[in-house]
Parts: sequence; C-alpha cells; structure tokens
Amino acid sequence: MSKKVLIVGGVAGGASTAARLRRLDEKIEIIMFEKGEHISFANCGLPYYIGGTIEERDALLVQTPEKMRSRFNIDVRVKNEVLSIDREKKEVKVKDLDSGKIYKETYDYLVLSPGASPIKPPIPGIDSPNIFTLRNIPDTDAIKEYLDNKKPKRAVVVGGGFIGIEMAENLYDRGLNVSIVEMADQVMGPIDFDMAQIVHQHIKSKGVKLYLKDGVKEFEYKDGVTRVTLQSGKTLDADIVILAIGVRADSKLAVDCGLEVNQRGGIVVDEYLRTSDKNIFAIGDAIEVVDFVNGSKTMIPLAGPANKQGRIVANNIVGRSEKYKGTQGTSIAKVFDLTVASTGNNEKLLNRMGKKYGKDYKIALIHSKSHAGYYPGAIPMTIKLIFNLKGKILGAQIVGYDGVDKRIDVIASAIRFGGTVYDLKELELAYAPPYSSAKDPVNMAGFTAENILKRDVDVIMCNELEKLDKNEVIILDVREEIERELGYIEGSINIPLDELRDRLNELDKEKLIIPYCAIGLRGYLAARILKQNGFKKVKNLSGGYTTYSCIFC
Amino acid sequence: MSKKVLIVGGVAGGASTAARLRRLDEKIEIIMFEKGEHISFANCGLPYYIGGTIEERDALLVQTPEKMRSRFNIDVRVKNEVLSIDREKKEVKVKDLDSGKIYKETYDYLVLSPGASPIKPPIPGIDSPNIFTLRNIPDTDAIKEYLDNKKPKRAVVVGGGFIGIEMAENLYDRGLNVSIVEMADQVMGPIDFDMAQIVHQHIKSKGVKLYLKDGVKEFEYKDGVTRVTLQSGKTLDADIVILAIGVRADSKLAVDCGLEVNQRGGIVVDEYLRTSDKNIFAIGDAIEVVDFVNGSKTMIPLAGPANKQGRIVANNIVGRSEKYKGTQGTSIAKVFDLTVASTGNNEKLLNRMGKKYGKDYKIALIHSKSHAGYYPGAIPMTIKLIFNLKGKILGAQIVGYDGVDKRIDVIASAIRFGGTVYDLKELELAYAPPYSSAKDPVNMAGFTAENILKRDVDVIMCNELEKLDKNEVIILDVREEIERELGYIEGSINIPLDELRDRLNELDKEKLIIPYCAIGLRGYLAARILKQNGFKKVKNLSGGYTTYSCIFC
Ligand SMILES: Cc1cc2nc3c(=O)[nH]c(=O)nc-3n(C[C@H](O)[C@H](O)[C@H](O)COP(=O)(O)OP(=O)(O)OC[C@H]3O[C@@H](n4cnc5c(N)ncnc54)[C@H](O)[C@@H]3O)c2cc1C
Ligand SMILES: Cc1cc2nc3c(=O)[nH]c(=O)nc-3n(C[C@H](O)[C@H](O)[C@H](O)COP(=O)(O)OP(=O)(O)OC[C@H]3O[C@@H](n4cnc5c(N)ncnc54)[C@H](O)[C@@H]3O)c2cc1C
Ligand SMILES: CC(C)(COP(=O)(O)OP(=O)(O)OC[C@H]1O[C@@H](n2cnc3c(N)ncnc32)[C@H](O)[C@@H]1OP(=O)(O)O)[C@@H](O)C(=O)NCCC(=O)NCCS
Ligand SMILES: CC(C)(COP(=O)(O)OP(=O)(O)OC[C@H]1O[C@@H](n2cnc3c(N)ncnc32)[C@H](O)[C@@H]1OP(=O)(O)O)[C@@H](O)C(=O)NCCC(=O)NCCS
Repeated sequence: MSKKVLIVGGVAGGASTAARLRRLDEKIEIIMFEKGEHISFANCGLPYYIGGTIEERDALLVQTPEKMRSRFNIDVRVKNEVLSIDREKKEVKVKDLDSGKIYKETYDYLVLSPGASPIKPPIPGIDSPNIFTLRNIPDTDAIKEYLDNKKPKRAVVVGGGFIGIEMAENLYDRGLNVSIVEMADQVMGPIDFDMAQIVHQHIKSKGVKLYLKDGVKEFEYKDGVTRVTLQSGKTLDADIVILAIGVRADSKLAVDCGLEVNQRGGIVVDEYLRTSDKNIFAIGDAIEVVDFVNGSKTMIPLAGPANKQGRIVANNIVGRSEKYKGTQGTSIAKVFDLTVASTGNNEKLLNRMGKKYGKDYKIALIHSKSHAGYYPGAIPMTIKLIFNLKGKILGAQIVGYDGVDKRIDVIASAIRFGGTVYDLKELELAYAPPYSSAKDPVNMAGFTAENILKRDVDVIMCNELEKLDKNEVIILDVREEIERELGYIEGSINIPLDELRDRLNELDKEKLIIPYCAIGLRGYLAARILKQNGFKKVKNLSGGYTTYSCIFC
Repeated sequence: MSKKVLIVGGVAGGASTAARLRRLDEKIEIIMFEKGEHISFANCGLPYYIGGTIEERDALLVQTPEKMRSRFNIDVRVKNEVLSIDREKKEVKVKDLDSGKIYKETYDYLVLSPGASPIKPPIPGIDSPNIFTLRNIPDTDAIKEYLDNKKPKRAVVVGGGFIGIEMAENLYDRGLNVSIVEMADQVMGPIDFDMAQIVHQHIKSKGVKLYLKDGVKEFEYKDGVTRVTLQSGKTLDADIVILAIGVRADSKLAVDCGLEVNQRGGIVVDEYLRTSDKNIFAIGDAIEVVDFVNGSKTMIPLAGPANKQGRIVANNIVGRSEKYKGTQGTSIAKVFDLTVASTGNNEKLLNRMGKKYGKDYKIALIHSKSHAGYYPGAIPMTIKLIFNLKGKILGAQIVGYDGVDKRIDVIASAIRFGGTVYDLKELELAYAPPYSSAKDPVNMAGFTAENILKRDVDVIMCNELEKLDKNEVIILDVREEIERELGYIEGSINIPLDELRDRLNELDKEKLIIPYCAIGLRGYLAARILKQNGFKKVKNLSGGYTTYSCIFC
C-alpha cells in the first residue's frame, strides 16, 4: 500500500517537499496543511510589494492551492491548523479555521515546516495599532493598507537585520521619513562592524536616521502617533512602526509532542532531517542546523536552505537516502544602492567561539573594482575574507555597488568545496571588460590572503591602530601628496610610493612602520620595499585609508 | 649575486611577471623588452575604445614605461625587439627600433610572453588599405582614424569569434551597416551550435547580417571600397573590413633557438611553465597549455591565464615552486544585449575526442530566470551543462541577458574543484529577490542533471527529433492551448499538463512519448506522470519549445 504523508506548513519548505514528493511518487497520498490563507507565497518579496517595486499582489503567490491540486494532485488544506501530534497513533489533530471543526488525520510520515514568527518582546505599548510585524500576506496587506489609507509620514523601524533594512528602504521609497533603531552597534548581523560601517554611511547618506546601540524602552500610542522611547532616553515620534528584531522557531507542535528541541526552540534533526521521532521530519526556519564551516549547531532561517531541505526530505521519504550537509548562511540584501552579502563565519562568531585573530584566523580586507577599471562603470567593492592559518576559507563578507552577488557566490562555492585561499587565486573566472578584470576581485582576495599567510606582508587592521604606542610607530602615507587633501591619518608622514626607494633614510628602522595608501595595494608595495631594505617591523594597513576613514569618521 | 631576468613582451603576461618579480625581490635585475611603443595596455578594451564606450585613449594604458620604472624599478625598453636567443651563452640579441642599433643582453632567466598575432591567410587582396586586424594600440589607432576620417558606412567583419563579434557590435554602435562572415555554421566557437543559435537570432535582430558556412574567396579593392567575394559566390561591398579569424602564437623566437613547440607553434612548457630549456620560461598566448578538464594539450589565448601564469613564473624564478594546473577556457563576451559565456569542454570538443552523447556524457539544458520571477526584471538564461556519467562536470555554456557571468563563474569554480552535478545542487548561493531565486539557476541545472543521471527522466535533444520515425512517436505538447498560438512542433498533439492524469488513455503506451512545454519543466513533470503510469518510453524534450524554435526557425 502506498504511503500517506502529512505536511505542516505550505510555504517554502512545505510546498517544496510536496512538489518533489509527487514528482517522485505518483501514488503517495500527500496532505498539506496551512493555517494561513495562502501557500507558496514569496515571503522574501513582501517588503518590495509594500514599497511598490513589485506592483501586483498576485505576483507574490508563486503557487495557489488550486494549481497545487491540479498540477501535483496534492490535497492542500489552507486555513487548517495542525493543533497537535499524537506520535503513538501517528495522527495529527487539525482545526478547520473556517468551520471551527476539529478532525484527525493519520500519517506514515509527517513533515514539519512551520517556519518562525517575528519576535514580539513584552515592551510596554507593543500592541499599539500602528506597530506591525511582517511575515506573511495578511501582515503585508495590513501594512500596505495602513500606508495607503493613513498616509503616515514618519516611520520607525525597530531592528537593523535584513527585514528591517529592507522595510526601511521600501518605506523610504514610498516617501516616508525613516529611522532605524538597533540595539547592537551595527546593522546587518551577518557582517562584522568594519564592513557594517560602509552600510551605516550609505544609509545615513540617504537621510535615513540610524540609532545604534539603543533599544526600545517603551511605545506610547496616541491619536495615530506612537512615541518610541529608547533606552538612551531619546524619543522618536512615528506614524508607523515596523518591528523586525528577529524570529523565533514555530516549534510549539514539536515541543508539545515531546520532540527534541534546542534551547532556542529549534527542532533537533539528524543529517537526514529526521527529528527524534523516525516518522517525523522537520525542515526550514524551525530547525537546528549544522554550521557547515565549524560543525557546531545553530539556527539559520533562510529560504534557500528551506527549499533544498524540502527536496531532501522528499527523497528520504521515498527511500532515496540523502544527507543535508549543513548551512553556511550565505545571504545577501540590497540596501538602497548597496549590496551587502556574506557567507560562512564572521569574525564576531569566531571570537564568540574563542578564536583569536592572528592565532586562529587571519583576514584579507581589500577593495577591488567590479570590472576592468578602463571600462565605464567600474566601482570598487570591499571584500573581507577570513581564513585559518592553513588557508582554509572560513567566511567572507562583501559590500559594494555592483558584482557583489557574483563574488559572494563564487566564494560560497569555494567554501562548499572546502577550499582554501590558494584555490581562490587559481579560480579561472570569466573575464571580458564589462564583467571583471583579468584578475577577478576573488583572485585578488586570494593573492592578498596568500601574501599574508606566507608572511610576505604583515597587515594591521584599522581597529588595532588605537592600541599602539604612538612613539614607537611611524604611520607612513605612501599616497601622492594631492591625495592627502581628501584626508589622512593624524600623525602620519607622507612619502609617495614612487619616491620611497630614494627616501628610505628618512625612516627609523627601529620603529614599527605602517604604510598605508588609499586601498591597501600601494601600502603592500611599500611594505615589500621596506621589508627587503632592512626594515624588520612593517605592517600594511589593511584596506588603507578607505577603510580607516569609513570606520573612524 | 642577484639574478638577472629578461622578459620578452610587456603586456599581459610579461608585465605581470615583472611586477610580481619585483615585489618578491627588490634586488633582482629585471629588463622588459617590448617591440611596440606601449606596455601593459588593455588589449581587451580595444574594441570598446573604437566603438566609443571607452572614451579616453589613455584609459587603455594600464601602466606606462615611466610608471613601471619608478614604481617597480624595472628597466622597460619599449621599441626594442628581441631578435634571437642564444641559449648557450644565455644571451639575447635585441634591436632598438628607433636607432636601429643591435645589442646583446645576458640573462639568468628568460621569460617569453610574446603573445600571438592575428592570422592573415594569403587571400587575394588581403592587403587592401581598408582591411584591418586588431591586436594592439597602433592597430586601434589605425582603425579609429579610418573610421573618423573616412566615415565608412558598410563594414564586413570576417570571423565570428570573440574579437570579430565585439568589433561588429562596436562598429554597429558607431552607426555602421555591419555584416559578419564566418566559415563555420556558428559564431562564438567556445559554445555549441544549439546555444549559438540564440546568439545568431540576437545578432540578426539588430540588423547585422550574418553569413555562416561561408568563407572569403577574394578581396578586391577599388576607390575606397573592398568587394568581398565569398566561397558561395555572394559578394559584399565594404568600406571597411575587419579581419578577425584567429591568432597564431608568436613563437618564432622560440622556434629559432630550438625550443620545443607543438604543431600549432605553441611553445611547449612543463607544469612550472618552463620550456625545454630550464632557464627559459614561457607564458600567455604563445604557449601550449593543459586542458584542465580532459588533460590534453591545447592552446587557449586568454588574459586571465596569461596574468596568472606571469605570477606563477615570477614565483618559480625566485625559487617558490608553483605549478600551473591548466586552463579551462572560461570565457565571456557581451554580444549586444546578450552575454555569452562558457567554461570547460563543449560538445564539439568532446565529439572530436571521440566521446559520444549518452555513452560518455550527458546534457542538462535549461532555461532559468536570472532572479526571482516575482521581482521586476527577471529574464531567463539558457544553461547547457555537460557532465559525464558519474556526474563530473565537463563544461557549461550560458547565454542570456542578466546574471550570466555569475552563473558561469560559479560553475567554473565547481569545475576547478573537480565538482559534480550533485555538488551544484547543494551549493548555497546568495538569495534575495533582486539577485536570484531560492533555487539558483545553478542549483536548477544540478537538479535537472541529477534527474537525468538517475534516470528519473530521459531527455531528448532537439537535434535528435529529426531522426525519429514519426509513426513510432507521439510528440506531446503539455502547454496550455493558448500557448500553441505562438507556435508548436508540427505533428504534436496537445494535452495540457494539468489534464494529463485524466487523459492518459488518449495516448498509446507502445509509442515513444515526447512531452514538451515552453522550457522543459512541465515536460519533466509530464514525463514523471507518464513514466509512473505505465508508459515505458518517455523522453522530455530538452529545453522545450524555446530551444526547439530557436534551433529550427
Ligand atoms: C519579509 C521577509 C523577507 C525575507 N527575505 C528573505 C531573503 O531575501 N532571502 C532568504 O533566504 N530568506 C528570506 N526570508 C526568510 C524565508 O522566507 C524563510 O527562511 C523561509 O520562508 C522558511 O521556510 P519555512 O518553510 O521554514 O517557513 P515558512 O515559509 O514561513 O512557512 C511556514 C508556514 O507554516 C505555517 N504553519 C505554521 N504552523 C502551522 C500549523 N500548526 N498548522 C498549519 N500551518 C502552520 C505558517 O502559517 C507558514 O505559512 C524572508 C522572510 C521574510 C518574512
Ligand atoms: C581585441 C582583443 C580583445 C580581447 N579580449 C579579451 C577578453 O575579453 N578576455 C580575455 O581573456 N582575453 C581577451 N583578449 C586576449 C588577451 O588580450 C590575451 O590573451 C593576452 O593579452 C595574452 O597575453 P600575452 O602576454 O601572452 O600577450 P600580449 O598581451 O599580446 O603581449 C605580447 C607582447 O609581446 C610583444 N612582443 C612579441 N614579440 C616580441 C619580441 N620579439 N620582442 C619584444 N616584444 C615582443 C608584443 O609586441 C606584445 O605587445 C583579447 C585580445 C584582443 C586583441
Ligand atoms: C512553488 C513551489 C511549490 C515550487 O516547488 P518546486 O516544484 O520544487 O520548484 P520549481 O517550480 O522551481 O521546479 C523545480 C523542479 O523543476 C525541475 N526543473 C527546473 N527547470 C527545469 C527545466 N528547464 N527542465 C526540466 N526540469 C526542470 C527541477 O529539476 C526541479 O525538479 P526536482 O526537484 O524534481 O529535481 C515552491 O518553490 C514554493 O512554494 N515557493 C514559494 C515559497 C518560497 O520558496 N518562499 C521563500 C522564497 S521567497
Ligand atoms: C598593470 C600590470 C603590470 C599590473 O600587474 P600587477 O601589479 O601584478 O597587478 P595589480 O596592479 O592588479 O596588483 C596585484 C597585486 O596587488 C595585490 N593587491 C591587490 N589589491 C590589494 C589590496 N587591496 N591590498 C593589498 N594588496 C593588494 C595583489 O595581491 C597582487 O600582488 P601579488 O601578485 O604580489 O600577490 C599588469 O596587470 C598589466 O600589464 N595589465 C595590463 C595588460 C593586460 O593584462 N592585458 C590583458 C587584459 S586587458
């Protein structure tokens, strides 16, 4: 007899499982429960529909229940909430939300893809009528309606993660005056502070106000206006507030029936995405995953993994054993004109795990043009590449205006293959002037990392400068004199690179010399010249003045 | 005592060697000979300067001899041609082209990066004054001057390779009436015919005339006009002719001094890029390289490899032993609004090597959107992925309007790591709606390839259709009726996918059923339904009607 599979949740993970399952097996009975009205909608598109970039609401509905039935012969039950799981009986209890009727359904296999819900902490006033969270179509409709009807002018977005920033941008696009409030010292958690500073500058350049290291203490609603009081005491008046401070796994069903979950409520699964009950699989935002880079357990709520996990679970259900090897957290967001992307581990995470810069990992931070400099439109991007002392790539972050998605994908692929920085330098990437340079930025990152690992050059990160004893250090600006007019590091002396070989005697060989240029390349050349001319302590300033000025200004 | 290194050729390979060598060793004596007036120029940018996209001629000069001297302390000798090599004496004979003076220079190591020259076969009339080839700045100046002064209206470009096509586009951009003549049945050699057909259509849609399978028999110049007579007898009148039918290694120096070269004149080198003389290295367009995918010897004249080889040779000269692992031929070109890219081996090459489709390799040909369909601007690209029966990726070709460069780079990287199609499906690529889909086109290519390898679906390529016995085959259009109005395969019957399960009895189980849809996805779904309902011979039409109509219309 053919199997019967129940699926809880009808969007990214759930619908993907259902579709693949049907392709694999025409006979299997598949019932997909979705408590909301819609299945297969484009969660990730919601901010852009609110902002108007996506014009048609229908575009958000990638699949409809009807199509899912006619095309995949799947019994789709929207507005049906699964209330509980009886693992003994292999049975779920379901409530038809329209009729209120409660019924049971048995299964051979159960797949949980319930997703995660926006976190709503118990801040006073959080239920005010103009405070919204965003997860699904009804949320979207509510926000859009409020914008269309009430025409709010001032928005406060609480939370500087992907969704918060995307909402800030889309509200800005609609002409609102936008402020972002973020408890951490930076937006966009997946990247490190030094990279986030580029984003901060860009956000501010748009006239969006940014309140960092500040949380919300209280909301007070009155006559359509919510006064947002921050921990610092500052107050912001908002006609609309978007709350986007993270999500929490929707794992109540799993918890209630005794499935193993982690401290954060993430459903624990094995490599086959099987829960602690062999007949129940779980996928998507609700599960705990293995960090592909460091092997630890974590939670990474992203659509790509959810979709792929759905396919793997379907394979496993029909007996085609397939493992899920973990999540790297490759992610990307458009932030106004910028693209911000990352993959693998960042420095913050490495430090939390007790890893130390220099001892456990090193960093190449470069600025490299999106394509050949002589072809119009080339713009630099900033790449931060993190690798261990054997060269293995641990993570990368890229911020820039063009071609960022390409480079993060190439590095993400290298990480997937367990690649090293030596592999990056060898990658043969497509080059013609409109697309890249003969040495692609990814190659450049590889070269630079190799030079650091081989100790051809030592580097110093901008945040290390402050700790130095000014008397023991010469900060050496090797740019042309004219470049200093745009700013320079206080206390630095200037010897343009091309004069350096003739002016070595102006420098004290006993001191630590820190050459810097605009981006790090000439600084590297200077470091090589110095090192080979008897200067023993030389450290190129990583990222040059571009990074320095971004971090400290 | 410090070494003395001579470099022949001062552009991509030569200048890269020189720069890296100096970074590695401040003391080494480096002399770089360049017979032309310029070093380090942007060969790849030349067509775009002619077309006007690159406005400033100076932008083409990435480095000047003066800068190379002051920054890298390199003795740059432009307009100095190396005439011969005395391997016994480790000495070269050089002619100073300005003074006519001939002199000698000794070396410890000699690096040859002489490049390759445009092929000019002995066709009658080939030396007519309005026939040009393009390799360097003087060529560029000559063409540009001719265009500016003579204002030609009709251009014939002979050769449909990268340079020919780029020149066609740039002449078109300047308002010329352009024809392309190509001896093969397709332009853009690195891709296969089925993919090239997309390019042909696009070129024609611009009003550029395309003469395929036709070579030039004769040129006749009269009063500023060259009459181009083709092998077919057709004649084209041209005010300007660009000859771009390939390049030949400039290996005369190597040949004359007895270094080993291959049949095509390519200098033979070992993995360390050392010629048959241990003190002479060679790199760039002039050398024979290992095909990274199949291990055979070949010639692949591209800038990325030349630059990287330069760095490797510098490393080897200073004693840091490093291997060059071969060239995959990752290449890309902008063809009007299209991007055409490839990496690894194509089908033509596999066939020339005696490999057979189905037996030695298989193909996944898909059309996949550049980013999420619900976000504005998503346009399909066509991916042809070639892999062996174990799943190892042999090559890929992509043609499309947006995001092509990213996907070819990801696949090129996978090839570099020896990856399989199974790896492609697991790659965790960056997804947000403006950049990709939760399943990136590369993942999709991986899924599709897996389905083919696992025999979940058999596919048939469009070019196989003709060979079939019409009486034994049902060509089954599973698109909606309305889609047939845009065209359909002659003799096909129509059962829309969503009705298929209910209308299986209309189909003869003994016949080979070939479902097809617009792009291949619904055809795949139909194939799965049929296969699991007792139809034993089912083959999804690869690429669907999109590919079919492109190849046959
Ligand atoms: C605004 C926004 C933007 C995003 N942007 C991106 C992006 O750019 N890139 C990216 O990778 N990811 C993005 N994400 C995250 C991505 O959408 C999720 O990672 C993905 O949807 C997770 O899939 P899932 O199946 O686990 O959960 P979901 O897709 O959320 O589906 C879970 C479904 O289960 C239903 N459900 C829950 N419990 C029950 C129950 N008991 N009975 C019946 N039904 C139930 C819920 O109603 C819900 O519809 C974004 C998310 C949001 C909200
Ligand atoms: C129009 C055009 C567009 C191109 N577009 C692309 C592209 O988009 N992508 C890509 O990857 N590649 C492209 N290429 C190819 C790329 O430019 C070459 O692969 C690369 O330049 C090869 O480097 P090389 O050092 O071997 O030769 P070159 O860069 O050609 O340098 C060789 C130099 O050696 C000098 N020389 C030769 N013999 C002597 C001698 N005896 N004495 C002194 N000097 C000598 C020559 O004058 C020449 O300047 C393009 C080439 C052209 C012409
Ligand atoms: C709509 C949805 C149900 C589709 O699931 P799906 O059918 O697995 O996915 P697709 O329509 O992309 O099709 C993929 C399948 O087509 C195949 N395919 C794709 N292009 C093909 C082609 N040109 N030829 C042949 N097969 C092709 C793939 O191999 C894959 O099949 P497989 O998994 O059996 O190997 C699911 O993706 C969904 O619900 N999406 C919206 C929700 C969501 O993901 N939200 C988060 C992101 S906003
Ligand atoms: C101009 C030319 C001489 C430059 O050669 P180069 O100095 O090796 O190359 P770049 O200027 O790109 O610099 C690369 C070096 O800077 C380093 N670098 C790049 N960005 C850096 C940064 N932000 N911080 C520190 N180092 C950096 C790299 O590691 C590399 O050094 P390495 O090889 O010692 O590891 C050579 O590329 C050339 O002649 N180009 C034009 C000709 C040509 O290539 N034509 C074909 C294509 S159109």
